[in-house]
Amino acid sequence: MAVAELSTSYTKTSTRFHSSQLSLSSSSSRFSDHFRRSFRPLPRTRNATISCSVTSDQVQTPIPVQAESPKGKSECYGVFCLTYDLKAEEETKSWKKLINIAVSGAAGMISNHLLFKLASGEVFGPDQPIALKLLGSERSIQALEGVAMELEDSLFPLLREVSIGIDPYEVFQDAEWALLIGAKPRGPGMERADLLDINGQIFAEQGKALNASASRNVKVMVVGNPCNTNALICMKNAPNIPAKNFHALTRLDENRAKCQLALKAGVFYDQVSNMTIWGNHSTTQVPDFLNARINGLPVKEVIKDHKWLEEEFTEKVQKRGGVLIQKWGRSSAASTAVSIVDAIKALITPTPEGDWFSSGVYTNGNPYGIAEDIVFSMPCRSKGDGDYELVKEVIFDDYLLSRIRKTEAELLAEKRCVAHLTGDGIAFCDLPEDTMLPGEM
Amino acid sequence: MAVAELSTSYTKTSTRFHSSQLSLSSSSSRFSDHFRRSFRPLPRTRNATISCSVTSDQVQTPIPVQAESPKGKSECYGVFCLTYDLKAEEETKSWKKLINIAVSGAAGMISNHLLFKLASGEVFGPDQPIALKLLGSERSIQALEGVAMELEDSLFPLLREVSIGIDPYEVFQDAEWALLIGAKPRGPGMERADLLDINGQIFAEQGKALNASASRNVKVMVVGNPCNTNALICMKNAPNIPAKNFHALTRLDENRAKCQLALKAGVFYDQVSNMTIWGNHSTTQVPDFLNARINGLPVKEVIKDHKWLEEEFTEKVQKRGGVLIQKWGRSSAASTAVSIVDAIKALITPTPEGDWFSSGVYTNGNPYGIAEDIVFSMPCRSKGDGDYELVKEVIFDDYLLSRIRKTEAELLAEKRCVAHLTGDGIAFCDLPEDTMLPGEM
Repeated sequence: MAVAELSTSYTKTSTRFHSSQLSLSSSSSRFSDHFRRSFRPLPRTRNATISCSVTSDQVQTPIPVQAESPKGKSECYGVFCLTYDLKAEEETKSWKKLINIAVSGAAGMISNHLLFKLASGEVFGPDQPIALKLLGSERSIQALEGVAMELEDSLFPLLREVSIGIDPYEVFQDAEWALLIGAKPRGPGMERADLLDINGQIFAEQGKALNASASRNVKVMVVGNPCNTNALICMKNAPNIPAKNFHALTRLDENRAKCQLALKAGVFYDQVSNMTIWGNHSTTQVPDFLNARINGLPVKEVIKDHKWLEEEFTEKVQKRGGVLIQKWGRSSAASTAVSIVDAIKALITPTPEGDWFSSGVYTNGNPYGIAEDIVFSMPCRSKGDGDYELVKEVIFDDYLLSRIRKTEAELLAEKRCVAHLTGDGIAFCDLPEDTMLPGEM
Repeated sequence: MAVAELSTSYTKTSTRFHSSQLSLSSSSSRFSDHFRRSFRPLPRTRNATISCSVTSDQVQTPIPVQAESPKGKSECYGVFCLTYDLKAEEETKSWKKLINIAVSGAAGMISNHLLFKLASGEVFGPDQPIALKLLGSERSIQALEGVAMELEDSLFPLLREVSIGIDPYEVFQDAEWALLIGAKPRGPGMERADLLDINGQIFAEQGKALNASASRNVKVMVVGNPCNTNALICMKNAPNIPAKNFHALTRLDENRAKCQLALKAGVFYDQVSNMTIWGNHSTTQVPDFLNARINGLPVKEVIKDHKWLEEEFTEKVQKRGGVLIQKWGRSSAASTAVSIVDAIKALITPTPEGDWFSSGVYTNGNPYGIAEDIVFSMPCRSKGDGDYELVKEVIFDDYLLSRIRKTEAELLAEKRCVAHLTGDGIAFCDLPEDTMLPGEM
């Protein structure tokens, strides 16, 4: 996965205190107007790379390239620098209005799958033209050009604009979707606490950039790990964007859980529904076999081996990424990209009657008694309007509750680790164990 | 790209003679019945790996896995070993009949993009269930399991069966499409002639396997290089399959040519049509700007810089892969996969009125005066029934003809190099220069 690099430093001790970079006092909920103002970015030098292979001696027809547009900060690439008029063409004039989709870590393997799915129309439909805004790092800018070249050569009719850059304030301009995939991978000897800090700084910056530049209703999907707490940090730094718009991806976990239940039950995977992943995208996550259904029946009525459900199922779901690395030598880029597509589609198409999907969302008045002010994966339903509501018809037993408490405690601990990045004061980091999922960095 | 390994040996001299492995006399066209019989495979030990993660102690419901089917040679993977009844489910009973799609080099990067496109329904449509039959090598079988795992975890409703193996006779069983991507990459110091021989042996074997096992109307798309001559070898070894069903992929070249014309003309790429790639998928290929159109007009009327068209355009198209490797450090897996999708869709959807597409097809009564009995990229049109017809309304000038003659000469020379593999007697190899496309192996 590509890395959005920011200059950063961290001390390596097992318990950490960070002074708040923003000098904000501890706050358990969304910021007051006073603090919102504090988060507005300072004027800064724009250093995005402009790369456009259409030059004046090449283009013969008098069509201006976007680099000359009034805003003066387009970073279009190649053929995507050309203007066009969707309303002027017979085939395109019935299309919807163009939407801007920003993707970070755009030169990485997950993006390499995802971008082509977005561009093909598979995600947003055959009448939805899209603009892709690719965020990379100075180190990856050449690779981003390569990605843009491949997108050019694919001649996707719906893909009308591609721009690349390394400044999130520019790349996120007017974004209606922000798919935040880029994150620093965990280096040798690095602890989860280190990763939380180093990636937290990236997501704090990107949150500020979204707050400054993106559409006021941008939907944000955080994939880069540790994704729940990264999403929380991002959200806290973007006070002008609804907290409900931030998601941490747990859809791959949901998909894997469905597949493992199908395998165990001896049914095809399309028979498994109502699968919730509760909590963190880490080994404390809780794939919920109490509420899930197989052919419409409670899982426990179909899978009689309850010992397997309690003792092996969760591990099977979580070890999937590690097994894949062993067998394949690579991480699960393709299926992660598929799960991102699923997560987006879940928000833009109505959820089938009686079913639901999982997403890591902000706990703000949740009906389950889960601690407020964290990003926690919960069961959601959507009308297909980009928004969601939490599902109320779920049941709990002691086993499920005790595990939910554990993942909740972890997320609260992660939150304390990044207090300096969320405006909650002094960070205190005492994560007890390594809970990174196998096969993830 | 994954390698379909076969034990093989070759001598390294710049001019080569191969004695015919099949002791066939030279034949310039399709084989007689006598020779067809000679090509039937001898009885052989089947050594495909069976890998199925559903075992009897795991599955509780009494659904038999396919490994127990009458044919006794299923190599299903994981959840795809489960039986299902498409007609029994409300959502699936209106679906078409399942089709088998075989893919070689299935553990490689091109396939890693392509398989997920096939499985998602993007290629064959939302009511076409598919079975993927993945061919790998002994070395890649673990990686194939990884691919199958990711396909499992993606929960594609249309993907009903996935099987993996290393024996083409088994993997190609009843295949309706064979996408032959796997090929030996060119090693250091290896010449094109060496590559022709080493990969030719792979494609001879796969042709025999298709002839023995595949659907009688299987469509074969050869991607592994040198793809034109590999397709010829494959076809010659599959005499019971119509010669017209074999294609060598030149669609990526077509797409790149359209993009470069669009860039030069300053129009969006959807305005470029009627793009023919003539001849070989090598540096002798001819992207045809004489017959191509921009906004319905001849290219030369739109792009007045005819010097650019004659001297720079072709090189720009051909250097694309090399530039990509420089920038991105990887070969063009994603856009190659897109072009394979385009090539398949071109055969299963009616070609838009007045337009055409390019494909490397068998020259058997072509209207252009091109030498018979080679695989040559030419302009095609389809009714969408999987078949095609050659386009007659093309014009030639001396410049175009002279270049077509050069790529034709190369393909005839390549054919002489592999005579021992096509049943045309003694091979004689005198390829004058290296014509591999930059960035391809």
